[in-house]
Amino acid sequence: MIDTVVIPERSGTAFKLDKGATLTVIDPRGEQVADLLAFNAEDVREVISSGRTLDYAETIRLTLGNKLYSNRSRVMLTIVGDTVGCHDFLLTPCSIDTFLHFYPDLPPHRGCFGNLAEALAPYDIAPDAIPIAFNCFMNVPVDGQTGKLKVLPPLSKAGDSIALRAEMDLIIGLTACSAPDSNGGTFKPIHYRID
Amino acid sequence: MIDTVVIPERSGTAFKLDKGATLTVIDPRGEQVADLLAFNAEDVREVISSGRTLDYAETIRLTLGNKLYSNRSRVMLTIVGDTVGCHDFLLTPCSIDTFLHFYPDLPPHRGCFGNLAEALAPYDIAPDAIPIAFNCFMNVPVDGQTGKLKVLPPLSKAGDSIALRAEMDLIIGLTACSAPDSNGGTFKPIHYRID
Repeated sequence: MIDTVVIPERSGTAFKLDKGATLTVIDPRGEQVADLLAFNAEDVREVISSGRTLDYAETIRLTLGNKLYSNRSRVMLTIVGDTVGCHDFLLTPCSIDTFLHFYPDLPPHRGCFGNLAEALAPYDIAPDAIPIAFNCFMNVPVDGQTGKLKVLPPLSKAGDSIALRAEMDLIIGLTACSAPDSNGGTFKPIHYRID
Repeated sequence: MIDTVVIPERSGTAFKLDKGATLTVIDPRGEQVADLLAFNAEDVREVISSGRTLDYAETIRLTLGNKLYSNRSRVMLTIVGDTVGCHDFLLTPCSIDTFLHFYPDLPPHRGCFGNLAEALAPYDIAPDAIPIAFNCFMNVPVDGQTGKLKVLPPLSKAGDSIALRAEMDLIIGLTACSAPDSNGGTFKPIHYRID
């Protein structure tokens, strides 16, 4: 039996993921977002790259079969399961600045950015090195005519998941998102397991 | 009289841009792309961020009046002139890996990535620190339904330009793009001036 790990609401974690292992990110209650980062465990200057990935995939809608590339154009992760088919790879993790910008009336929160920065610090990954995350379940439609984007509630239902196989030894950062807009105004945990 | 500087075809350069100065990037022949990077001149770990910028602007189509943010959520540049209105901020600079992927039958070229890496090296900016560039004049429509993106010839005509005012002291990297798809299959120079 494989244990499922709980990431409590508005928090984050980091862990090693060996080459060949599969990380399954689960939305246990539905309509929650998990920001995912990946770094080469042997050299953390190699990092997941939205720009490389979108270029090679020729789409902003990544799903089953798509590969997530590093800034060195190497495959870090392959999506091997996806019950949702709607994720975001355009936006950086929410941060205290995001809260001040979008939610001036709410108490500011360090957000996924702050949670990732703390979780990744033991791996010698500095906050400035946090790039655009692969935002599991995040629903960011783009208007093809105007280019305008919106952050809408995720399409994920309780129990939905995305599975990613590591193609190199990785350090993963993963959160249960803290921003009201990305999860329909509620804060919920994220589960994950490694097979 | 302000001198115009020529960036020869398939090459790149880097230079300091003082706070308050305006950089005008000119497409002298039309249908050419210039990849633009910006770093805080006082601390090059602060770098232009597509993810922050798209999040705050709520659009992927940046033009007159939009601000380009750093990874620390500070404004680096403001777009103060734009005769085209179509630029890309999704894709990383073309590189030798891009050429091997998209143009397997052409002689590979180090691309904008290699040109930027060489130009930025004297400023202690490593290749791994090159993020998604603001790709002036690059025409990357996204299908709002499917998410698919295409790289089409730029909409810029000969003499078109975009002007950006520096909101902090910056190091700028700038290229005349090397990838056939981004400029309709031809290679042309880019001009710029600083006012």
